[in-house]
Amino acid sequence: MTRANFTVVGGGPVGTLLAISLARHGYQVGLYEGRPDSRQTSIYQGKSINIALSDRGWTSLEKIGISAAAKEQAIPMFHRAIHDVDGEISSLPYGKEGDAIWSVSRSGINEQLLDIAEADRNITTHFEHRLTDIDFETATTTFKVENEKELVVESDFSFGADGANSKVRRMAHNLPRFSYSQTYMPQCYIELNIPANPDGSHKLEKNALHIWPRKDFMLIALPNTDGTFTCTLFLNHSGEPSFEALRERAAVEAFFSSNFPDAMDYLESPIDTFMEKTAAPLFLVQVFPWSFNRKIGLIGDAAHAIVPFYGQGMNCGFEDCAEIDALITQHDHDWEQIFPAYENARKPNGDAIAELSKRNFVEMSDLSGDKQFQVRKKIEAKFSALHPDLWTPLYSMVTFSPDVPYAEALRIGDEQNRVMERIMARPGIEDDWDEPFVMDQLLELATEAFQLPH
Amino acid sequence: MTRANFTVVGGGPVGTLLAISLARHGYQVGLYEGRPDSRQTSIYQGKSINIALSDRGWTSLEKIGISAAAKEQAIPMFHRAIHDVDGEISSLPYGKEGDAIWSVSRSGINEQLLDIAEADRNITTHFEHRLTDIDFETATTTFKVENEKELVVESDFSFGADGANSKVRRMAHNLPRFSYSQTYMPQCYIELNIPANPDGSHKLEKNALHIWPRKDFMLIALPNTDGTFTCTLFLNHSGEPSFEALRERAAVEAFFSSNFPDAMDYLESPIDTFMEKTAAPLFLVQVFPWSFNRKIGLIGDAAHAIVPFYGQGMNCGFEDCAEIDALITQHDHDWEQIFPAYENARKPNGDAIAELSKRNFVEMSDLSGDKQFQVRKKIEAKFSALHPDLWTPLYSMVTFSPDVPYAEALRIGDEQNRVMERIMARPGIEDDWDEPFVMDQLLELATEAFQLPH
Repeated sequence: MTRANFTVVGGGPVGTLLAISLARHGYQVGLYEGRPDSRQTSIYQGKSINIALSDRGWTSLEKIGISAAAKEQAIPMFHRAIHDVDGEISSLPYGKEGDAIWSVSRSGINEQLLDIAEADRNITTHFEHRLTDIDFETATTTFKVENEKELVVESDFSFGADGANSKVRRMAHNLPRFSYSQTYMPQCYIELNIPANPDGSHKLEKNALHIWPRKDFMLIALPNTDGTFTCTLFLNHSGEPSFEALRERAAVEAFFSSNFPDAMDYLESPIDTFMEKTAAPLFLVQVFPWSFNRKIGLIGDAAHAIVPFYGQGMNCGFEDCAEIDALITQHDHDWEQIFPAYENARKPNGDAIAELSKRNFVEMSDLSGDKQFQVRKKIEAKFSALHPDLWTPLYSMVTFSPDVPYAEALRIGDEQNRVMERIMARPGIEDDWDEPFVMDQLLELATEAFQLPH
Repeated sequence: MTRANFTVVGGGPVGTLLAISLARHGYQVGLYEGRPDSRQTSIYQGKSINIALSDRGWTSLEKIGISAAAKEQAIPMFHRAIHDVDGEISSLPYGKEGDAIWSVSRSGINEQLLDIAEADRNITTHFEHRLTDIDFETATTTFKVENEKELVVESDFSFGADGANSKVRRMAHNLPRFSYSQTYMPQCYIELNIPANPDGSHKLEKNALHIWPRKDFMLIALPNTDGTFTCTLFLNHSGEPSFEALRERAAVEAFFSSNFPDAMDYLESPIDTFMEKTAAPLFLVQVFPWSFNRKIGLIGDAAHAIVPFYGQGMNCGFEDCAEIDALITQHDHDWEQIFPAYENARKPNGDAIAELSKRNFVEMSDLSGDKQFQVRKKIEAKFSALHPDLWTPLYSMVTFSPDVPYAEALRIGDEQNRVMERIMARPGIEDDWDEPFVMDQLLELATEAFQLPH
């Protein structure tokens, strides 16, 4: 039989993966990207943007039937390397022995997926096609192509996979009963670079995510395969210190040398970069519904842009794709069912990872600070090792437990918080944390919290 | 000295009150309204829209120096008249003896304020001027006037007082770091009418807000001075029952006659009205900042549209005006100071009344239902009478305590919730609530909660 055809707006990793999934179910897919094809142009060269992928992302790719070629070029990060102001480095593992999050080149994985898409005869790809209009009744899309010509594309269904600044989503603002929010974080960011050694090796430990946590701000570094690290400085937009306040070169130099003295040995002209670049904002987007008239869907950052502090943005987008992939089979291609089932299944999880990603700035940026927090992590890790069925730390649920939906992880994590607040309220806990009675009390509280029916 | 001049976009009650306040401080004010002047046209006739004003509104008017002429034409409502499905009516007072909320004609108060504004030589009013553009750098506004002509108005400062669908606010969506949300409630509403008796008297008790609470939906009626009541039916948009589900005349008739049998004796062709009207959505708007470049401000519903379940929308807008009025004096006309002070003072209160107004649907629509809730109210009322310094019920703080900001009322109310949850957890409380030991325990808990430093 002939399946319907789809227009997917946005040829990033999520849009491309969605196109592949749809094509494998027999649909004709037109994949439209506003930017040039990064495989044929050099516009992105010299700039490695990397992102974190973890078990949810890999699992979603596998569910859709993509072999993990991308993983071969990804760099596992087994722990956080925490740089204090004196240059001392301490290590905090991400999970159990062997658990890792993976530093992946954004353009690398995108290009691998595009290659897979283009090998599928059900998919046509179109670059430098900028969306100018979408008809929410008919799913007809209009694109501006070269020489400002307009191309009108008719299809049965369309998806907006056009990212955090999604034009499809912004055009939906005027639809009846469409709830939307766009919320800015106090922080902005700029990217910096640590070059490779002359022999191509990494200047810092390769298999770690490096963090310079300074409470109100932080610097992080993720490894690239070419020996470089991509660094991100997160700093408030205004106040003290902030991008707004740091205008004078001398003040910027003092800021870097007093806060990141060891990083100054590695960073490639951070002061020049700081002075030249405009800091980019961080914002969250939450909307509902994620579909319109059973004809148009939103997916990935277009539906739920989050902040990067949990490293889950692309993982969440890939999970969206895997959900649709499963629903197509489950509802036997009935999109009257698939669209509402998709948004109802994924919206609570999108909201949960948004909340978790916001909270994690505080946790990441205070990693070497709060003593209580360190003690709490140690107690949780010890207890989790003793009673793995009763307690998986929140970070591990989010990152290494793809079978636990984000919303469920958030709910359990909040319950764990209530339990741990009672443990941490015990006088002298900072000294006594390794005593057996702490495990006994925690076992009692955790059993009560997690083994009784809710 | 010559003061700066202001453009106020929106000639509703809040915009007009703001204009009066600014003019009394010596500013030149142009007040621009998109609709015709309701004092000279009959477009609104035959339709009484009333709103609730309470102590915050009256106090704000007084602070700005407006004598309470409006109050003379307002109808005090001392209690809720709760109509159950059998037509039984019970009474629940709003506060202490003499406390009332006031049913006010929206057009009446608007016209009174417009008359005051036009008597001020610092104010010019302009009707049928629809805003088409605003320059957020210069505060220059552009209006479409008759024959589609454009009028460009330059001024030193501008305010968007253009309501829940504010065009000023929507045009700000594209400004950097502007956070915004628009969130739809599950409920929609239509307005119905109860006509006056032939002698002009009211068919139902005049000095009450009538409620037909049916848990998932409700009907309310507010008195007008002409003997009529304006009724509002709040009902879910979709599901069972809902505006979407009630499409057939017979089903609508069955819905009304089974749920509102006594009201059917009074309502003016409710079935016809239900069948003919399109239900209007209910939504909340939250944004930040409320000012741009120290040149443009947002005020009233334009800054913080809420849902009507606490009857506080216009009260909150009038408080905004009173805040600016006070800040002009406090900061000696320095708008570099006034704009940030205004938004920082009012934003937490706007957010708090948004939250309270959402929660109050559940409370209002379940008034005659939940037994526990009724018992809780009785305990609180008794305790509050015994210990007025220790406990003012949340509803009274919000409605009758203009010195307690909304945000403070919400915080205290949440603390009261925690205390009352412990009281209500006592086995047998529904029978024992009037026993002295309940007051003793509450005194102990309340003293601990509210007399210790936070």
